Amino acid sequence: MSRAAIGLDLGGTELRAAIVSESGRVLAHAQVKTEAAAGPDAVIAQMAALARSVRAERPDLEILGVGIGAPGPLDSDTGIAIAPPTLAGWRDVPLRDRLAEALSMPVVLDNDGHAAALGEWRFGSGAGLRHFVYVTVSTGIGGGVVCDGRLVRGRRGLAGHVGHMTIVEDGPACACGNHGCWEALASGTALGHEARRAVAADPTSRLAALVGDAPATARHVTAAAREGDAASLALMAEEGRRLGIGIANLLHLYSPERIVLGGGLSSAFDLFAPAMRATIAARAMPEFRAVPVEPSALGLEVGVIGAAALVLAPDPGRGPVQPVFASASI
Amino acid sequence: MSRAAIGLDLGGTELRAAIVSESGRVLAHAQVKTEAAAGPDAVIAQMAALARSVRAERPDLEILGVGIGAPGPLDSDTGIAIAPPTLAGWRDVPLRDRLAEALSMPVVLDNDGHAAALGEWRFGSGAGLRHFVYVTVSTGIGGGVVCDGRLVRGRRGLAGHVGHMTIVEDGPACACGNHGCWEALASGTALGHEARRAVAADPTSRLAALVGDAPATARHVTAAAREGDAASLALMAEEGRRLGIGIANLLHLYSPERIVLGGGLSSAFDLFAPAMRATIAARAMPEFRAVPVEPSALGLEVGVIGAAALVLAPDPGRGPVQPVFASASI
Repeated sequence: MSRAAIGLDLGGTELRAAIVSESGRVLAHAQVKTEAAAGPDAVIAQMAALARSVRAERPDLEILGVGIGAPGPLDSDTGIAIAPPTLAGWRDVPLRDRLAEALSMPVVLDNDGHAAALGEWRFGSGAGLRHFVYVTVSTGIGGGVVCDGRLVRGRRGLAGHVGHMTIVEDGPACACGNHGCWEALASGTALGHEARRAVAADPTSRLAALVGDAPATARHVTAAAREGDAASLALMAEEGRRLGIGIANLLHLYSPERIVLGGGLSSAFDLFAPAMRATIAARAMPEFRAVPVEPSALGLEVGVIGAAALVLAPDPGRGPVQPVFASASI
Repeated sequence: MSRAAIGLDLGGTELRAAIVSESGRVLAHAQVKTEAAAGPDAVIAQMAALARSVRAERPDLEILGVGIGAPGPLDSDTGIAIAPPTLAGWRDVPLRDRLAEALSMPVVLDNDGHAAALGEWRFGSGAGLRHFVYVTVSTGIGGGVVCDGRLVRGRRGLAGHVGHMTIVEDGPACACGNHGCWEALASGTALGHEARRAVAADPTSRLAALVGDAPATARHVTAAAREGDAASLALMAEEGRRLGIGIANLLHLYSPERIVLGGGLSSAFDLFAPAMRATIAARAMPEFRAVPVEPSALGLEVGVIGAAALVLAPDPGRGPVQPVFASASI
C-alpha cells in the first residue's frame, strides 16, 4: 500500500487540505472558506471534515498522519496556537491534540512559514541544499530557514519571523504592533496601500481604471503593470527595492545557498526582480551577492505540501512522527 | 596530564593568546599589538610566536590544538581569511593551514563572532541553553547564534553577520559598503561619531572637558555619563534605543532563550540598558518580550576563551578536531 500524509493549510481566509504522496505530489485536494470569525470549535470541525473528505477520495493509501501549517505565533513543541491575529477568539488553543482526538490520527503542528519552508526544501526549489531560506510574501511576510541541514526552530519553535525585522526605523505601523517591519513595507497588503495612494494621485491611470470602485490591491498593480501602466511599474520597482533590503539582511543573518520567494506576490516575480536584484547588489557584502533568489517551485500548493512534509519528511531536529493512538485511522 | 587548548584572538589592534583549560579557565595569557599594516606573513609569524610563548609557560599540559577567532569575512570550512577589512593586504589567506604548518598542531579557524558565541555558550552566560545569541558591540557589531543546540553556520560559515542588517533604510554609511546597518548606528564607532557631534554642539559640557583635544570616543561618553553629564546620558539612552531595535529583530529572527552582549561597550551596560529594554518592549511581539538580555559573563576574555572552545568544545555541527600531523607538538 502506498504511503501518504494529509496536509492542512489553515489560513485566515482559506482552509486547504490535500493528500500528499511520499514524493511530494498532491493526490487529492479540497478547500473551503475558513470560518475565521466563528471561533476555534467551528474551525477545528471544518479541519476534521476537510481531512475526512480528502481521505475518502483515496481510501487506497496508507495515511501516516496529518500535518498542519497554521498562522503564528504558535508553539510547535506543545502544538498550541498562541494567538493567530487572523482567527477570532483563538487564544492558547491546543490545536494539535484536539485535531488528533477528532481524527484518531497522529498530528504535527507548525507555523505556516516553517511548514512551507520545509515543503520547498524537501520537494521544491530548496531540494538538496544544506542552507536555505523560504519567504512567503502575501497578506503578510513569513518564512522559514534551513541552516546546516536543519530547520532553524529556536525557543518554542518561534524562530524565522522574518517579516518582523525593522528595516525602516520610523516606518509604517505593522500588524504586530511594531512599526517599520519588513512586512509593513513590502507585503501584498503594503503594496495595496501604495496602490490606493497612486490611484488617488492619478485617477486617470490604467491602474485607476482597473481598480474602479473597489479598494486597490496588489493584484491590480500586477495586472496594470503587465499592461505597461507607468505608475504600476514604478510601484513594482519600489516593491522590489523594499524586498531587496530585507533579503540582503537575510543573506547576512542566515547565509543561505538560495532564497526562494513564495506567496501571492511571487506571481509578479519578474516584475519586481530587477529592482530587487539591484538593491541586493548594492546592500549585500560581496561574499553574499551571488546567492540565487528565485520564485517558489511549488507555487500555490506549497502550503499543503509543506504541511504534509511535517509528517512525510520532518526535519532532523524534530525526529519522526509518533502515532498518538494505537489504532490510527480515519 | 591535564588537557587544554591555545586560543588566539586576532583583532585589527590587539593579538591575544591564552592557554585555556577544559573547564574554560585562562591558565596563561599574552598579547601584542597586531602588525596590521605589515601583511599576512608578519601577522602569522606573530601568532605562532605568541602561541609558543604561552605554551612555554605551561609545559605541564597536554595541548589539544589551537583555535583562532579572526575578523570576517572568512570561510571556516576551508580555513581561509577572505578579506578582513582591518588587516592590510589580506586576501584569501589560508590562515588555518599556514598556522598549522608553523606550529605542527591541529588548528581550527572561525570568525571572532562565532568563536565568542561558542565561548559564551560553553563557558559563560549561555551555558546550558539550546537557543542563544551573542552580540559583540565594540568597533563594529558582530556575533554568533546557537539554535537548537548548534551554532548557526550557513553557507561558508558566513551566517550571523548580525551587525549588517539594515535597520534604518537611509541611515549612515557602514564599513561594509551598505548604509543604515545596525553596526553603522549602534557600534562603539557610531557612538564616537555622535559624541563628536555633541562636543561640537556644546563645548562647555563635561563630555567636552573629558575629551579635550583628542577625538571623542565611546569611552569618553561612558566616563562623562558616569559623572552625570546630561548630554552623555542622552547619548547612552539613544545608544540603548538603537541597540534595542536590532535586538528586537534578533528575537524575531532566531528566537533565543537569552541574548548576551559583549565587547567594549558592554561595560556601559547599566547605562544603556533602560532605554534598550524600553525599545525591546515596544518593538518585540509579546511572545519575545520576556527573553533576558544580559552582559557577557566572560568579559574581555571571551575572545581567547571562545577561540580555545573551537578546539575544546566544538559545536556538534562541526565534529571533533582532527590532528593534521601525526606528531603534534610545539
